[in-house]
Amino acid sequence: MTTSAPIRFRVFSLNCWGIRYLSKNCKERFVLIGDLLSQEQLDVALLQEVWCEKDFLFLKKKLNSIYPYSHYFKSGFIGSGLAVFSRHRIHDAFLYRYSLNGYPYMAQHGDWFGGKAVGKVLLNISGLTVHIFVTHLHAEYCREKDSYLPHRVVQAWELQQFIRHTSAGADVVILGGDLNMHPDDLGTRLLRNYTGLQDSFSETAHFDGCEEGHTHISENPFTNTDGLVPFGGGVRIDYILFKGSGEVDVSCESLSTTKGPVPGHPFPYSDHEALTAKFLFTPTTKGNGYSERQSGCVSDKLPELVNTVNEARTEVKVGLHCAERMRHTAARTGIMGLVLLVLELAIATIPLFALGTEQPFPKASFYLLGALCFAVLLSTLMLYVFYSMEVKALQGTEDQMRLALSSFQEQLKESPKVLSSDHLRKPLDSKDSIHF
Amino acid sequence: MTTSAPIRFRVFSLNCWGIRYLSKNCKERFVLIGDLLSQEQLDVALLQEVWCEKDFLFLKKKLNSIYPYSHYFKSGFIGSGLAVFSRHRIHDAFLYRYSLNGYPYMAQHGDWFGGKAVGKVLLNISGLTVHIFVTHLHAEYCREKDSYLPHRVVQAWELQQFIRHTSAGADVVILGGDLNMHPDDLGTRLLRNYTGLQDSFSETAHFDGCEEGHTHISENPFTNTDGLVPFGGGVRIDYILFKGSGEVDVSCESLSTTKGPVPGHPFPYSDHEALTAKFLFTPTTKGNGYSERQSGCVSDKLPELVNTVNEARTEVKVGLHCAERMRHTAARTGIMGLVLLVLELAIATIPLFALGTEQPFPKASFYLLGALCFAVLLSTLMLYVFYSMEVKALQGTEDQMRLALSSFQEQLKESPKVLSSDHLRKPLDSKDSIHF
Repeated sequence: MTTSAPIRFRVFSLNCWGIRYLSKNCKERFVLIGDLLSQEQLDVALLQEVWCEKDFLFLKKKLNSIYPYSHYFKSGFIGSGLAVFSRHRIHDAFLYRYSLNGYPYMAQHGDWFGGKAVGKVLLNISGLTVHIFVTHLHAEYCREKDSYLPHRVVQAWELQQFIRHTSAGADVVILGGDLNMHPDDLGTRLLRNYTGLQDSFSETAHFDGCEEGHTHISENPFTNTDGLVPFGGGVRIDYILFKGSGEVDVSCESLSTTKGPVPGHPFPYSDHEALTAKFLFTPTTKGNGYSERQSGCVSDKLPELVNTVNEARTEVKVGLHCAERMRHTAARTGIMGLVLLVLELAIATIPLFALGTEQPFPKASFYLLGALCFAVLLSTLMLYVFYSMEVKALQGTEDQMRLALSSFQEQLKESPKVLSSDHLRKPLDSKDSIHF
Repeated sequence: MTTSAPIRFRVFSLNCWGIRYLSKNCKERFVLIGDLLSQEQLDVALLQEVWCEKDFLFLKKKLNSIYPYSHYFKSGFIGSGLAVFSRHRIHDAFLYRYSLNGYPYMAQHGDWFGGKAVGKVLLNISGLTVHIFVTHLHAEYCREKDSYLPHRVVQAWELQQFIRHTSAGADVVILGGDLNMHPDDLGTRLLRNYTGLQDSFSETAHFDGCEEGHTHISENPFTNTDGLVPFGGGVRIDYILFKGSGEVDVSCESLSTTKGPVPGHPFPYSDHEALTAKFLFTPTTKGNGYSERQSGCVSDKLPELVNTVNEARTEVKVGLHCAERMRHTAARTGIMGLVLLVLELAIATIPLFALGTEQPFPKASFYLLGALCFAVLLSTLMLYVFYSMEVKALQGTEDQMRLALSSFQEQLKESPKVLSSDHLRKPLDSKDSIHF
């Protein structure tokens, strides 16, 4: 029951930087974000970093008449921070929590506590099934020495998996959010090449916003400008991506970003700029979309995809090596703590056998050392469990990537013309022979 | 490109009870399981509780010529224990880890460490897209006082979500695994009513196996028989569920279970019985399956589904109440630890201000008490974080259930004939008014 008239559809995305008591002007900014959403005639608004449910409920109340449907995705300790406001009924919602998301002991970065995830809501727009995804990936704190890169690559891998697997029945797919990745970064390429999602910034007919579509700019008073210097004062890490299907052609008529301070106020909406994309859904009469939908990726892009997955696999292997090393260190430290504890107990038992001998060391030091050994033992045990889980998740991702490469090889065999010799070196008989 | 000839497809499912050094006759049983899989002419074998990768690799090597394709899903500390062996190429694999899965401090139950999940593999059988799911849900240790019930209900909810959302493009859907739920349990009804999956035991034309299809029987020497007494010596907790689509009719020609000891051996394959189902895929010429696929549930079953979701929501609320209480207890204990630590430090500082005064209590007790307070503080902090995550996951599930009920209400409004007055009492204007 697809309508044949073209449909205009406006999507908004903003990382709201809503950490109560820590983010500057948090309360005032949520009022302004509410005002902005009220003014703009949007179909759907995708928000990230709405960490506090009270802020979501404030927006929900404020926007109730214009956006009667909303969903707040809950995950982790304070997350997921993802919220959707919609003019259209939300028929279904589903959340996928990323298997890796930083480390709990890196509390100053806080990502682990945010329970980063990808949320999906299902809308029906004049008979068209529109799948809307919103996500927020692990932050990048130091580009030169990015210890979280393997985690972000795994998140990008799981994001593309989630989108591909859950959108087979979609007429239109839209993803909005803060990917914390530049347009040419490995994760972005992985996501786009595998899902076939298009970038509204590069596809739009009209663009109005920050230079080169930057969404994280040095002029922003909330931004730490040091990290942005090498990039000419701005980076593009927030996106609205889209794709149609055999049933619907989707084009991006316009894309805009906010540009610094809110008019009439000394500060902007957030430490990120907001994105607004206007799409045109044009139902086709081809009706041949079903087989296209299933594969999710266009075969002439397969060699590029093979390279990207190979690159991602290498990054996951680097992460795996690091996680295994950390696990090894935790185990070694734990064993040292145990040996020390046993040694101490052995020394303490000496007076029991040799009556009259003085206690070898003072009671206070004995208890203090004992407590320390026990603390080391317990904390290394927990770290060992945590790193083992990280190792399992990375191994699992690598296995899935190997499986994908093997499946691509099969597809390429069936259509060898798209294959350049660079992409296929050896047959895939054993684990070791997969270089592909 | 769907073939028009009917296809026979044999599926096997077994919980292997493969805990090295703890499960009895573990190594011998994996040899026998390998022999069984070699003899049976299966298309796909779905294994659970293959906890050790070495056992998977042993089977992979042994079965390589008959089942050249396999996938081992990795999750958690020692899991997920899920493995798939297939005669057909596995084109893609995807894993969803359940958000709740017991407690890490309940180490004797071990479920948390297993990282329970649902795995999906994608096969192409003569042009048909067959989606195969394998899962293992949280165990039930005490049916009368089942403290894990809310977790299992959340798992069943996430399982049905995962299947519905990822199988829109499937011609055939098959789920095998150990659900740890009886056929009429809330989670089983939730899963079956929402996804439309059919039970091979009730749908099969021929059955050969244990009485009433039991897969966990008291005659099994590895089974703790006490728990099975109220159920006449056996329960059915392992399943092979299936559904076709508008493109393919699926029928279950036969289902069989193993019956106790392996012929010629004094022990069975596992503490569960294995299931083997023979399906017949008959491609239809209707080609009207697409819209049916999208909804995932048949509208005349909607009132029943509404009741089931309501029931599940109540159970999640019970779990939420319990998790909030536990979080409160953790917070209170942590505050007590903190107060004691501060008090101790305050007493210890007295000699600093009143020179000459004796140390109020011996050094040894001081350090011991300090260490104890610190340990209490740290462990309650971690428990607080853990319970907060549990609360978030339960709240998130409840929100999704409320959304689902609201969407059902809309569907029922559109076709009011299927609605009995029991199912719809009030309009859905506010959170409180949803009883539905």
